[in-house]
Amino acid sequence: MSMVDLNGDIGERSTDNIDGNDSKLMNYVTSVNIACGAHAGNADVMDATIQMAKKQNIAIGAHPGFPDPEGFGRRMMSFQPAEIFRMVVWQIGGLKAFCDIHDVELHHVKPHGALYNLAAKDVSVAKAITDAVQAIDPTLILYALANSELAKVAVESELPIAQEVFADRTYQPDGTLTPRTEPNALIDDPGVMEEHVGRMIQFNEVETVSGEIIPIKADTICIHGDNKKALLFAERICHFLQKAGIDRKPIKKW
Amino acid sequence: MSMVDLNGDIGERSTDNIDGNDSKLMNYVTSVNIACGAHAGNADVMDATIQMAKKQNIAIGAHPGFPDPEGFGRRMMSFQPAEIFRMVVWQIGGLKAFCDIHDVELHHVKPHGALYNLAAKDVSVAKAITDAVQAIDPTLILYALANSELAKVAVESELPIAQEVFADRTYQPDGTLTPRTEPNALIDDPGVMEEHVGRMIQFNEVETVSGEIIPIKADTICIHGDNKKALLFAERICHFLQKAGIDRKPIKKW
Amino acid sequence: MSMVDLNGDIGERSTDNIDGNDSKLMNYVTSVNIACGAHAGNADVMDATIQMAKKQNIAIGAHPGFPDPEGFGRRMMSFQPAEIFRMVVWQIGGLKAFCDIHDVELHHVKPHGALYNLAAKDVSVAKAITDAVQAIDPTLILYALANSELAKVAVESELPIAQEVFADRTYQPDGTLTPRTEPNALIDDPGVMEEHVGRMIQFNEVETVSGEIIPIKADTICIHGDNKKALLFAERICHFLQKAGIDRKPIKKW
Amino acid sequence: MSMVDLNGDIGERSTDNIDGNDSKLMNYVTSVNIACGAHAGNADVMDATIQMAKKQNIAIGAHPGFPDPEGFGRRMMSFQPAEIFRMVVWQIGGLKAFCDIHDVELHHVKPHGALYNLAAKDVSVAKAITDAVQAIDPTLILYALANSELAKVAVESELPIAQEVFADRTYQPDGTLTPRTEPNALIDDPGVMEEHVGRMIQFNEVETVSGEIIPIKADTICIHGDNKKALLFAERICHFLQKAGIDRKPIKKW
Repeated sequence: MSMVDLNGDIGERSTDNIDGNDSKLMNYVTSVNIACGAHAGNADVMDATIQMAKKQNIAIGAHPGFPDPEGFGRRMMSFQPAEIFRMVVWQIGGLKAFCDIHDVELHHVKPHGALYNLAAKDVSVAKAITDAVQAIDPTLILYALANSELAKVAVESELPIAQEVFADRTYQPDGTLTPRTEPNALIDDPGVMEEHVGRMIQFNEVETVSGEIIPIKADTICIHGDNKKALLFAERICHFLQKAGIDRKPIKKW
Repeated sequence: MSMVDLNGDIGERSTDNIDGNDSKLMNYVTSVNIACGAHAGNADVMDATIQMAKKQNIAIGAHPGFPDPEGFGRRMMSFQPAEIFRMVVWQIGGLKAFCDIHDVELHHVKPHGALYNLAAKDVSVAKAITDAVQAIDPTLILYALANSELAKVAVESELPIAQEVFADRTYQPDGTLTPRTEPNALIDDPGVMEEHVGRMIQFNEVETVSGEIIPIKADTICIHGDNKKALLFAERICHFLQKAGIDRKPIKKW
Repeated sequence: MSMVDLNGDIGERSTDNIDGNDSKLMNYVTSVNIACGAHAGNADVMDATIQMAKKQNIAIGAHPGFPDPEGFGRRMMSFQPAEIFRMVVWQIGGLKAFCDIHDVELHHVKPHGALYNLAAKDVSVAKAITDAVQAIDPTLILYALANSELAKVAVESELPIAQEVFADRTYQPDGTLTPRTEPNALIDDPGVMEEHVGRMIQFNEVETVSGEIIPIKADTICIHGDNKKALLFAERICHFLQKAGIDRKPIKKW
Repeated sequence: MSMVDLNGDIGERSTDNIDGNDSKLMNYVTSVNIACGAHAGNADVMDATIQMAKKQNIAIGAHPGFPDPEGFGRRMMSFQPAEIFRMVVWQIGGLKAFCDIHDVELHHVKPHGALYNLAAKDVSVAKAITDAVQAIDPTLILYALANSELAKVAVESELPIAQEVFADRTYQPDGTLTPRTEPNALIDDPGVMEEHVGRMIQFNEVETVSGEIIPIKADTICIHGDNKKALLFAERICHFLQKAGIDRKPIKKW
């Protein structure tokens, strides 16, 4: 593979600190996932973030999540699939309006937090999300955890997808992310992170927490904006990609 | 005038009682203003309401309001014009997504409650709303209080508008609605209501609370769904229109 | 048994229809469970409802639920036990403030919806709720589903409890309520309801959906305010209790 | 005057960054105003913040504000006085519950943002707040802008008050704060700030933006946690107080 997308969750702050970490992270990523006002974000933040992204030629994605701002969308909520379909339509629609008025394309959709994790395992949730994205615009790219049910369902539905891997997260033998509640969920050491990312991009494989090597496809790498080492990690990854002759580009430009 | 639109505020209920008054009111109105999730409504209600309206061939409008569900959007909030612009874009965008997936046109936009009243008087708010509607789609019709600043600003901006009058509300000498806090704000008697509506539609004039006759244009008549006599009033108005040979039709079908 | 409490969920409306069903239901019940602003309710509704209850000498309870107004607190949310503890403390505290300023006692706490169902089965959630109630005031009575984990945990913690049964709900062989998603979850026929309630109160037993007879303790009977037959059912129950010589009284007056 | 209280707004963050600036600010202040979940804050943050404050022997206050998290409570909302009364009762009640379970005293109440500014000018709002505080607990201290209507109303109601001054804000000739929308609203220079604070504490006077000297009483000095120089300013003020022989203490310990 000679191309990869680097994505960041963004626009999850309140209106008060509109600059800060987000604008720094945008020096490295090629696509951003913008919170749509349910788990975080609001009209003012969405509008400002989209304008920033447009200016820097970064691909814009919707980042829908459960309506639980106190829990930052990380707590599972027992929505019916039809409720998830409507929730996702609504959140994408709101963000897309800002893309439309600023004459910039909506490039992708990436579910957030508990919704992302649920869709990775639950076929009916995966189907609800895929249907919602397709109903809005069938050319949108769905970012889905590599090897997940969501990825499979989207492929079956012929929705374009990007298999996503995580720079700062470890993997279970079944290809899922190690839950954040586990002590070894996060990768903290920059060297380990670089090795981990390099292996996924160059060799399409990952070493799991139990030492096995499993196959993984890495179309897009996620940098968590709320990781304290996010900027350091982003810089390291960019430097590594350059050395390795791998282009950083949003999916639709491949 | 031989045509008039009859509009109703709708979709302001919670998910629990999805049928009820709304579906009855839809037997009379030719256009509906659907709450966009800020002062009332949510994805489930929007979706269900749009499908009901589509089935009955009723024109669909967005009904953006201040994000104050406890106060039902009736309390003024001191937003900056730029904040109002973004709030209105967001709310229309979310509702429009449901129109898009159900392949039905978004016909109009009508601000709700305190936002409607503020826009009727404050030019900068009127401009923010007009700009937002135009940015989303310049063929959308803006429903504005007849004679208001909002109506004037929209005309200047060449945004299509419908001058709106109220069946159950009295008028001040300056053409504004008598505030709900006043004892004589509401018209309760069906006969008085019919006389009041007939005069506005047929003669383009209204008798104010102080007895003066002032000119008024009535493109669309609002039926408040939360008025206990809403259905009775709607029926009386429809009967009157039929007798008078005036067609009930959404604006874009004139 | 010669005494029983009759409780109703109340204060779940918005400010707009402050009277209506609630005030009618209060002619029958001896205690009310007032929504605390998370799944429903707000300061205006709480204040008005507490004043109504005080006037009619009805015992007042807090009715905490998950912060999901769109889903009316009926969708499960994956809170940690410590988050549930804090959520319950907060919601009781807010309601108690209105009891304090109106100089009326807070009598009990009854979890709502998904929180109630979760606590009936999950010991750690049951413990979190019990701890929260006890931390606020160890003389508060906890209303818990008869035979549930919540009831057991509260008894072990020496928190006073009322075993609760439902007039309009059927029971599973394991003593839990038949989920609302099942077709036979609700009892609709007034005669069947009366027979069902009478058996629970007079003979401490219930016939489950599969025809078995299991023991059940009925300290308090719930009337769902959102059941369309709520008032009819309440009247039937009151009439039955009178005939049977059973006193209706809030628990603390036994 | 040989004593002064130093207060900080705190607990306005989300759950994600529970430490950080807040914990540093608490090395300087003698009392904290904790957001009550309306303009900011939630059960998790309230609970954690109260425990931190208790450990450091800092006096705890409720910081009620308008329910506008997107606008951070800085936008005016047209509440009726009765609505403000109930909103303030609710917010204090929720926070007080956490004080109760941690066995620590609720020391004071300070309105936030737009509510604070409105109460400074509008007698009916000032009365609603004063009544709410008094209804909850008449020994609570109300923090009010020095010279404001709120301060006057509280004095007339015999509610204990602390006259509050701002370290980083300039004053108008009528004793009110220069609005944040004005270019000269904020004091940025540490030396100017120290001079400004010293004059208010030691000489009970302030130089307004137009150069006049007006009298002012300074029982408590506010450090804004969201000012980037908050910690620097706090350190300078503490150093100045020490040199000047003025004790830092919460009001109830005077």
